[in-house]
Amino acid sequence: MHSWITIAPDSEFPIQNLPFGIFQVGLKDPRVGVAIGDYVLDLYALSQFGYFEDVDIADHTVLFRDNLNDFIALGKPVWRQTRERVSQLLRHDNTEFRDNEEAVRECLVKRAEVEMLMPVKVPNYTDFYSSIEHATNVGKMFRDPANALLPNWKHLPVGYHGRASSICVSGYDVIRPNGQTKAADADMPTFGPTKELDFELEVAFIAGRETELGTPVSTTDAEDYIFGMVLFNDWSARDMQRWEYVPLGPFLAKNFASTISPWVVTLDALEPFRVKGPDQDPQVLPYLQYTGNKNIDINLEVLLQPEGQQPVSICRSNYKHMYWNMNQQLAHQTSNGCNLQIGDMYASGTISGPEETSFGSMLELTWKGTKPLTLPDGTERKFINDGDTVIMRGYAEKDGIRIGFGECVAKVLPAL
Amino acid sequence: MHSWITIAPDSEFPIQNLPFGIFQVGLKDPRVGVAIGDYVLDLYALSQFGYFEDVDIADHTVLFRDNLNDFIALGKPVWRQTRERVSQLLRHDNTEFRDNEEAVRECLVKRAEVEMLMPVKVPNYTDFYSSIEHATNVGKMFRDPANALLPNWKHLPVGYHGRASSICVSGYDVIRPNGQTKAADADMPTFGPTKELDFELEVAFIAGRETELGTPVSTTDAEDYIFGMVLFNDWSARDMQRWEYVPLGPFLAKNFASTISPWVVTLDALEPFRVKGPDQDPQVLPYLQYTGNKNIDINLEVLLQPEGQQPVSICRSNYKHMYWNMNQQLAHQTSNGCNLQIGDMYASGTISGPEETSFGSMLELTWKGTKPLTLPDGTERKFINDGDTVIMRGYAEKDGIRIGFGECVAKVLPAL
Repeated sequence: MHSWITIAPDSEFPIQNLPFGIFQVGLKDPRVGVAIGDYVLDLYALSQFGYFEDVDIADHTVLFRDNLNDFIALGKPVWRQTRERVSQLLRHDNTEFRDNEEAVRECLVKRAEVEMLMPVKVPNYTDFYSSIEHATNVGKMFRDPANALLPNWKHLPVGYHGRASSICVSGYDVIRPNGQTKAADADMPTFGPTKELDFELEVAFIAGRETELGTPVSTTDAEDYIFGMVLFNDWSARDMQRWEYVPLGPFLAKNFASTISPWVVTLDALEPFRVKGPDQDPQVLPYLQYTGNKNIDINLEVLLQPEGQQPVSICRSNYKHMYWNMNQQLAHQTSNGCNLQIGDMYASGTISGPEETSFGSMLELTWKGTKPLTLPDGTERKFINDGDTVIMRGYAEKDGIRIGFGECVAKVLPAL
Repeated sequence: MHSWITIAPDSEFPIQNLPFGIFQVGLKDPRVGVAIGDYVLDLYALSQFGYFEDVDIADHTVLFRDNLNDFIALGKPVWRQTRERVSQLLRHDNTEFRDNEEAVRECLVKRAEVEMLMPVKVPNYTDFYSSIEHATNVGKMFRDPANALLPNWKHLPVGYHGRASSICVSGYDVIRPNGQTKAADADMPTFGPTKELDFELEVAFIAGRETELGTPVSTTDAEDYIFGMVLFNDWSARDMQRWEYVPLGPFLAKNFASTISPWVVTLDALEPFRVKGPDQDPQVLPYLQYTGNKNIDINLEVLLQPEGQQPVSICRSNYKHMYWNMNQQLAHQTSNGCNLQIGDMYASGTISGPEETSFGSMLELTWKGTKPLTLPDGTERKFINDGDTVIMRGYAEKDGIRIGFGECVAKVLPAL
């Protein structure tokens, strides 16, 4: 299947992808769009031309919002219908939209010309810790190399609550946070800009359906509660984290900013890239058991771009390495009756692979700063400098079809 | 000052209080109300009778909502104006409302007849850990009695993010959560109803003003960002917490439910009850230093009511014991640039006092279950049983004036 719109072979947005996002162009109000090749398809405009008459959207103004939440609330059958209708309209052999010059002019906007906004309003944000390579690396560095994983790690997908208010869309600069730190050899803490600003390469899924308090969701049903996925940079200040995190977990070391990619890729688009997950040994408790291929083969990459220079690749990892999958994360999150809300974000935790070049944070790549990275300009990095831009990319690929997320980019500004 | 409405001398809602809430009566839509004696004053109806003409509320429908957020967004001068206007209308010597029979009939509703709803939509929820007695008790029980406080505790108000979605208003039953636990002598964890369900006696403040990312709020300015306060029961499953909380903090042990009192008491109403806080030694960093009396003398009580029996008091504590005050908590929360949103909830952490009868959780009252409480019916409690109702009360009192919060009540239902 291909589209009548010309799409580069290596585009992340072929007709097989069709991710949802919120965009703004010129003085027009924000609205729902779908990415296709180098364009954004304006779904609200498309609805005004009557192309969604057979889609179960009673009130088309849900497409005329600054977030996807109201559209998502219509339910999975409607997301699917909408995406399938868009696919039909864009197929090479379909003329109903293609030959309507006015509609094409009004509904197709160059991606280069739009500003992407936060795709959802996020009521709750959880960050998991589900990569065994990452958890092992951290355990080796800070605890006992011989017993790197804590006793609970293989029995449940460890997670904690993060801050929803500071999740920003790609392109929003990150200000280096000030905070309290204490040097190992100091008597007293000090306050000032973090010296150990780090990224964490993650992928997050977005809840698409709410539940009542007291209602667990099984691993089998979990996918009915997931709208789609984004790349997620869980910015972290390691020196602040070390000092503050006992006994209640990370707080100010994380909540100054997180960055997500703007396009929400649906599980339907990612279905062809399903792979088997790792064997879980010891066997997990029944509420965490699952059947089928629940991991997804998504290539992930992190690039670092010093001010005024070209981006350089510093990490290549893959989402397929996850020890705990999304279905297990959602089943665990709701196993105590915790209620889901539409737009909730559930991030994977840092996704490190087995090789040293696949570690998903500077902490691991430079092994706590002991092995700095040397960049093409000769400068070294233990952590992230002011003026550096961190770029995350992700795509699944098979049979010449690439399903991408768009970039998750943020530049670091000096502390205030 | 007193009101023309007859108010019992020990009422928690004299004319000096006037807390805000959201109520519903009969088939009418939810709206903003103010508690006065045994009544709720319907602010929307009052506005329809023209009594708010001199208050800067351009659109009175902000009083006709199922949460206070839009009203709060109008800003502190408007909350103050509104409360002062209500105070004026209710004064013993003011006749303009009192003598309007139709208005009185429409605007004053018996409190016994209304259902109270969640007062705010909560975008973000932080739980601090600011009682030195509580932190010391926990440290003694689970770590080293000689070094009960962790090294960071006296340098910063330790806190973590909680789950906003499961915060419920008083009266909403709590279902005993299922979860993963591991007995100390077991090889493997098991899944089932918590055996150690606990309450935590807390007080929370609600953010009344948003900030941009990157904007710290000083201890001096903090009160301009606080709308008011509520009682807060941070329900906890101790056995789940013990197993899950390393290294990233509490998660499913907390996020199944929290209960708040329905009336938001303003800082203006609590102003006469300001007291000096504890000396902080060692001296805290400059961004956490403050001047003036920032603690508040609020009597707190927890009652346990077994099914079909009378409530029995099991804890009397006081908010004045807090080592870290609200101003410091808010300054810390924003010191890294983390942004505030209107309706955010910031809970104190368990408020224990110095005496054993002032400990704010069953964990501490029964010292990890080693000293069970004996109730009047002869039964014992190490933790909370199914059918038990936990009631929290709080009020400040001076010169015969009592400023109360209304009850924070929830009954525990068996696990599903």
